[in-house]
Amino acid sequence: MFDIRPVGYVIGLLVAALGATMLLPLGVDLIAGNGEWIVFLQSGIVTVLGGSLIALACSNGVGEGLSIRQTFLLTTIVWLILPVFGALPLILGASGMTFTDAFFEAMSGLTTTGSTVMTGIGDLPDGLKLWRGVLQWLGGVGIIVVAMVFLPELRVGGMQIFRTESFDTMGKILPRAGEIASRISVIYLGLTAACAACYGLSGMGWLDAVTHAMTTVATGGFANYDTSFSGFSAGAEYVAAVFMILAALPFVRYVQLLAGTAQPMWRDRQIRGFFLTAFILVTVVSLWLVTRSENSFEYAFRKSLFNVVSILTGTGYASDDYMRWGAFPVVLFFFIGLIGGCAGSTACSIKIFRYQLLFASIKTQIERIHSPSGIFTPRYDGRTVSDDVLNSVMSFFFFFTVTLGVVAVALGMTGLDFITSVSGAATALGNIGPGLGSEIGPAGNFADLGATAKWILAITMLIGRLEVMAVFTILTVQFWRD
Amino acid sequence: MFDIRPVGYVIGLLVAALGATMLLPLGVDLIAGNGEWIVFLQSGIVTVLGGSLIALACSNGVGEGLSIRQTFLLTTIVWLILPVFGALPLILGASGMTFTDAFFEAMSGLTTTGSTVMTGIGDLPDGLKLWRGVLQWLGGVGIIVVAMVFLPELRVGGMQIFRTESFDTMGKILPRAGEIASRISVIYLGLTAACAACYGLSGMGWLDAVTHAMTTVATGGFANYDTSFSGFSAGAEYVAAVFMILAALPFVRYVQLLAGTAQPMWRDRQIRGFFLTAFILVTVVSLWLVTRSENSFEYAFRKSLFNVVSILTGTGYASDDYMRWGAFPVVLFFFIGLIGGCAGSTACSIKIFRYQLLFASIKTQIERIHSPSGIFTPRYDGRTVSDDVLNSVMSFFFFFTVTLGVVAVALGMTGLDFITSVSGAATALGNIGPGLGSEIGPAGNFADLGATAKWILAITMLIGRLEVMAVFTILTVQFWRD
Ligand SMILES: [K+]
Ligand SMILES: [K+]
Repeated sequence: MFDIRPVGYVIGLLVAALGATMLLPLGVDLIAGNGEWIVFLQSGIVTVLGGSLIALACSNGVGEGLSIRQTFLLTTIVWLILPVFGALPLILGASGMTFTDAFFEAMSGLTTTGSTVMTGIGDLPDGLKLWRGVLQWLGGVGIIVVAMVFLPELRVGGMQIFRTESFDTMGKILPRAGEIASRISVIYLGLTAACAACYGLSGMGWLDAVTHAMTTVATGGFANYDTSFSGFSAGAEYVAAVFMILAALPFVRYVQLLAGTAQPMWRDRQIRGFFLTAFILVTVVSLWLVTRSENSFEYAFRKSLFNVVSILTGTGYASDDYMRWGAFPVVLFFFIGLIGGCAGSTACSIKIFRYQLLFASIKTQIERIHSPSGIFTPRYDGRTVSDDVLNSVMSFFFFFTVTLGVVAVALGMTGLDFITSVSGAATALGNIGPGLGSEIGPAGNFADLGATAKWILAITMLIGRLEVMAVFTILTVQFWRD
Repeated sequence: MFDIRPVGYVIGLLVAALGATMLLPLGVDLIAGNGEWIVFLQSGIVTVLGGSLIALACSNGVGEGLSIRQTFLLTTIVWLILPVFGALPLILGASGMTFTDAFFEAMSGLTTTGSTVMTGIGDLPDGLKLWRGVLQWLGGVGIIVVAMVFLPELRVGGMQIFRTESFDTMGKILPRAGEIASRISVIYLGLTAACAACYGLSGMGWLDAVTHAMTTVATGGFANYDTSFSGFSAGAEYVAAVFMILAALPFVRYVQLLAGTAQPMWRDRQIRGFFLTAFILVTVVSLWLVTRSENSFEYAFRKSLFNVVSILTGTGYASDDYMRWGAFPVVLFFFIGLIGGCAGSTACSIKIFRYQLLFASIKTQIERIHSPSGIFTPRYDGRTVSDDVLNSVMSFFFFFTVTLGVVAVALGMTGLDFITSVSGAATALGNIGPGLGSEIGPAGNFADLGATAKWILAITMLIGRLEVMAVFTILTVQFWRD
């Protein structure tokens, strides 16, 4: 077996860093005069100590870098360990959750899924509300770095197509990850601050503004209220829509924009595809809502814009119970969730570029009919797409679908009905948040599911967040063979 | 544009042949003393005349063979024209159906889907019952020929992997199709006769035995009763299970078996995969049924065997309303329908060999992690799989899934709920028959759907039966460009 100490070392450091971020809710509760701050102190100490111990225990094995297999392991294990520590404040604090519920919630946070098992969130102490936001916010920036550095290197799900373009510094994985993380963090922080300010202007209190800014920019979807976004003003809905869209664009384009080159952003096929998709879907649903009842056009447009963008970007806020919009939107929203945003953002699910690549490949195959012996290669963004990329994308699509099926069947085995099982599997695998049906739909909650179903969903969130193949790869015999 | 006359010529001949088969129900009604025979005489004359006229009109363009594009067109148009004529007896006869309903029923028959819009089938004249069976029976043998000759030649959906093995005679498409059709027909007739005899022994009357033998061997699933198979004896259920399985195996193996070589059949990876899948699914569902209530093991096994095999092979009979078996079987049956039987049989849906190829491809990709620069090629049945095959299979899978989504959304737009829309799309695209839910489920019927939904489903059956890509190819601009 290969040396797992370098992996443990990095994980330990990240766990300790997670513990440090507990100072934020600690401070908020302290200032607000909530006794709850002690919970974050306890959790923080345990987490920082735990992380440091892990790092220390592994520090003698830290070499000059990570192999591909170590990188695979790191990527997966991080997202399995951090929720354990992230769950501590939820177990110890006012919410007093079981480990299963707390792990589900923390995993849902760190994977930016946003499905919740908590009710009465509005009455929780400020610190806990903020902590849910922090979990998603950290998960969001984490996944951007993973998507820009790790997954392309691991050739997972066709992400290798973004290998050369992300940054020119092709150094070792960890230094590069650090550099990218710091560059991205500026943009990420800026977007969050801008979003929070706009939310404040739209009428939200400061805590709601900050927490929702965090979960918006992370396309996470945790809200401070059981009714999600439906209690906020029309202005807040528009603000959310704009920032959900911004958060679903490839962050490398913002880096380039800051460096003064806007052209790559306008030319990006992912971005164009994303806007076209959003435009068509919002228009269709708006028209549906207008014709269906006596909604004003503004109302229909706003509800359509907010909820379509929320599901398309995988954020998962709901500003209305779209289970009541009739049969068509329900079916449509299921499939919108399987589209997803752009790669290299916080958005999740199958993602626009994979559809574009798959359609390009099919176009090539049809061209072969005219001249069967001719060589045609699919092109994407002006470059030819290698068979390696295409195979990865297709394997991703296949595995995503098969996993969705297996998870849905497993959920059905726990007693959930068809719409809950199938939409639950999709929402967890696509890191979207709400499912469909009366139980886990936009007006529902995951609280009443059985423990088995919750564990299945939590693991599915992890699988989905790491683009499916990363998790399955480390589960194979081949991976561990020397 | 290319010459479509050779296509029209073949289609005309096939239409005329369809008209000739109307002699069967005509004879049955005449002997039974039903006045209904006149309907088949009228329909037969119109069909034979219509077909002959088409053939005649195109006969001056018949050249030395069909180009790839002509073959594409032929394959699709045949399945669009035949249902129009096949619907005639349903419109003129005792069932007195609208054109929409009759076209749906005939398309459902000829594509061996088996979804029905007819009620009170048990009370129809014998001729009409038989005609539904004949439609499926002809569709079944038609699809075997298409799957063995046309689709491999057209490189559709990865079927080209079966190119060399089918037969050694690599002559022109049409003569080869004729030769294969005649060789297959012997086996097909033999299986049907054996099945009918066994049904007779199990207690069915002769008409039921013959009709159900036809729809069993075609994995079609039309039954002579509104309650499908639930009125028949336990023995009949076992007979059906055996023959549904036999009909879902690659027919080329039977040809080889008759030629004295059984080895290819035992070694066939598709067949092994199919039996393994069936074994696991039947066992799981049997255990579920046993633990769930006080069913005897034989009863649970029989109901599980019959209904699992029925959906897995895409036959679509139901011997029980499995919507009442609890949440798990409902979700499971949805995904079982997306597995399908073996290529080169009458079975439909995604099919075992595609899953095997896709898993082989993913295994190869994981092997690359150890040595990224190494060349690994997926293998299937002892041979390396070309990228061309793999791309076709993956495109098929992708397009199948996207089509399923689009059709489900379209059905949702007509007002159908989630389970009806999604399962309706799957059952039509996979040519299975029953959907899920109270409306189109195993105890339901497609009669009450709107006309739009019926047309959507009928076209989806066609798309699914021709392995998706064949239909979409002729809808592209590239296809028609000179
Ligand atoms: K989300
Ligand atoms: K069928």
